[in-house]
Amino acid sequence: MTDFAKTRAMFDIPEGMVYLNGNSLGPMPKASEPAIVSFLNDEWKTELVKGWNTRNWFMQTNTLGDQVGRLIGAEPGTTVVGDTLSIKVFQAVAAGLALVPDRKVILSDNGNFPTDLYMVEGLMKLKADGYTLQTPEPEAVLDCINESVAVVMVTEVDYRTSRKHDMKAIIEKAHSCGAVVVWDLAHSAGAIPVDVDGLDADFAVGCTYKYLNGGPGSPAFIYVAKRLHEVVEPALSGWYGHAAPFAFDVAYRPADSIERMRIGTPSIAAFKLLSVALDIWNRVDLNDLRSRSIELSELFIREVEKRCPGLKLASPRDPQQRGSHVAFRFEHGYACMQALIAAGVIGDFRAPDTMRFGITPLFIDAEDILRASETLEDIIEKKTWKQDHFRQRLQVT
Amino acid sequence: MTDFAKTRAMFDIPEGMVYLNGNSLGPMPKASEPAIVSFLNDEWKTELVKGWNTRNWFMQTNTLGDQVGRLIGAEPGTTVVGDTLSIKVFQAVAAGLALVPDRKVILSDNGNFPTDLYMVEGLMKLKADGYTLQTPEPEAVLDCINESVAVVMVTEVDYRTSRKHDMKAIIEKAHSCGAVVVWDLAHSAGAIPVDVDGLDADFAVGCTYKYLNGGPGSPAFIYVAKRLHEVVEPALSGWYGHAAPFAFDVAYRPADSIERMRIGTPSIAAFKLLSVALDIWNRVDLNDLRSRSIELSELFIREVEKRCPGLKLASPRDPQQRGSHVAFRFEHGYACMQALIAAGVIGDFRAPDTMRFGITPLFIDAEDILRASETLEDIIEKKTWKQDHFRQRLQVT
Repeated sequence: MTDFAKTRAMFDIPEGMVYLNGNSLGPMPKASEPAIVSFLNDEWKTELVKGWNTRNWFMQTNTLGDQVGRLIGAEPGTTVVGDTLSIKVFQAVAAGLALVPDRKVILSDNGNFPTDLYMVEGLMKLKADGYTLQTPEPEAVLDCINESVAVVMVTEVDYRTSRKHDMKAIIEKAHSCGAVVVWDLAHSAGAIPVDVDGLDADFAVGCTYKYLNGGPGSPAFIYVAKRLHEVVEPALSGWYGHAAPFAFDVAYRPADSIERMRIGTPSIAAFKLLSVALDIWNRVDLNDLRSRSIELSELFIREVEKRCPGLKLASPRDPQQRGSHVAFRFEHGYACMQALIAAGVIGDFRAPDTMRFGITPLFIDAEDILRASETLEDIIEKKTWKQDHFRQRLQVT
Repeated sequence: MTDFAKTRAMFDIPEGMVYLNGNSLGPMPKASEPAIVSFLNDEWKTELVKGWNTRNWFMQTNTLGDQVGRLIGAEPGTTVVGDTLSIKVFQAVAAGLALVPDRKVILSDNGNFPTDLYMVEGLMKLKADGYTLQTPEPEAVLDCINESVAVVMVTEVDYRTSRKHDMKAIIEKAHSCGAVVVWDLAHSAGAIPVDVDGLDADFAVGCTYKYLNGGPGSPAFIYVAKRLHEVVEPALSGWYGHAAPFAFDVAYRPADSIERMRIGTPSIAAFKLLSVALDIWNRVDLNDLRSRSIELSELFIREVEKRCPGLKLASPRDPQQRGSHVAFRFEHGYACMQALIAAGVIGDFRAPDTMRFGITPLFIDAEDILRASETLEDIIEKKTWKQDHFRQRLQVT
């Protein structure tokens, strides 16, 4: 049984804050400071360039990749970390298209992360060969999969509403039509159990600064099913993905493993922060996490609906259809969220009217949920959000 | 006048070590630890997601980009940092090709960084439209520029021999032929003065973990001439390069500035390490740096040639034709370098027989150069390199 009091104690959350934004940027693990100080003084300073070998910097892509892999049901040797999620999306979709060269349709949905769609736009322009990107409503994706589709690119959990796609159904239909699927697991990894190997997924990508708590801009990850390792073409073919990266060959020859999805020299400081954040997950059973997430989410929905009838649930009511955040619609959501933040309850806002609350059992408990609900009730009741300084529009990530 | 004793004191170099490998991985600035500890405790821990605005994380790409820009002669607003050098090469060449859509030749040379060539290979495969990559000998590049060439992609300073390309001549000939030039300045930025604006360069890219001392895997940079900002197509079109990154539009619309070359969410921890490393450069006049680099390099060549006649200078003899490292050929170069490293003089080795020594005035002085020369003489004289443990082949970056 996962001890969530223990995991909570491993984070450094400011006194008095209820942090319901771990779906956007996870809080800092207490081990971050000693880890990075040790990296500086015992690795970079003293080992200097030798550190690539003596401190295993070079293979952190794989070591950390395997740790992420465990959280998404990927066997060791099928996941690497590095780069940004946008780059990993590009890599996966480009590789997917190369597997189905006679088809010209990429199917996504209009609820996907904008950057995933942007990266595909850029890729299509490069390929300049009649590709089209279809973006139906999320609910229509399954019906839109047919034999014209090369790649289905979808995000399992909608970043706005928390609605989940049915991974199993989409993969099965795509495969039966000869299409390849690229999953964005940015709101899945560390949020809900995922089983990429069990579902026979092709590609999956995600980030590590949300539920995985690697810090702002922590590197992304990419998973490629083992059966594809020797056939996928790395479109972003950098030296780090070469079969013999230190041979300095003039011609590219991809590694015969997941390593071909590595590109350039990654930030080792960023890897150290990610490493201690992932270590916390060694204590976590993902089924326990899921149960607890649902329990806390249900409590939050119940409390908010009871206390604040003006807010409308924007997430699916069935917990099995949700990820690990809860969204409510409220006409004055932006100002209300600002007032909440000022009161120490941190969620976030997505235009036009959605208030998002991340339910992250690693460091959130029932007491936090009750305090958040009470604070929200108080703000709505007193119309605190009407105060001018809460009503100007702020940029949020 | 730059005070190099002062800059030297700003680095934390292990006692007794002569570090002649700053061209591969720069040493750690003393300010690194307090900077990163402050980032953790005063920014990530306390500001959490708000830090993107309140601590200006979001615009560090530009703030740091301008600091790098000063070192390569780029006006503010023309350089951003982020990603890896391999990605930045891809971005620049893809943008260059889009500017000259009717031509199909990319001209580089066989002395370029392998990863630059690899990335172009991948790009050509994506574009699948009859592109070819020409890689003549470096000395032949100028003659190979003609009206069939779309993009010339060259590294100013050869990572093996330190031979410099003539930026002015290449840019002038390329422009007169209607071609675009992408410069890799990985061994130029912080090594020698560069004047991208003055030379009317189109694109330049580079890394920050060599002469700029940002730490292992510190982010790359890209410069785009201001006249191109509104016409370059960002092939890697991520949310961070969008005109309105927080509007969550479904369609991509590039920023009308250098920001369109940003891609995804960058590591802020890596930026903090880079930031303190770049601050050191505020004290440095690049002409002083160049004079001192030449003075120390000439001293090193003189001493090595006097003491070790078996070593053959692999770098140009004319200091104006060299970057800021010196290379010697020696049949037993690999084992000899291992023996040198064991004796506390850190250089590196590039197959088949090249020993490289970075001459980095920020933290290397004449005393270091003399000690390195004496140690080398001693090893050669005593044939220390013949000892078995120095003769096995080690992977080096």
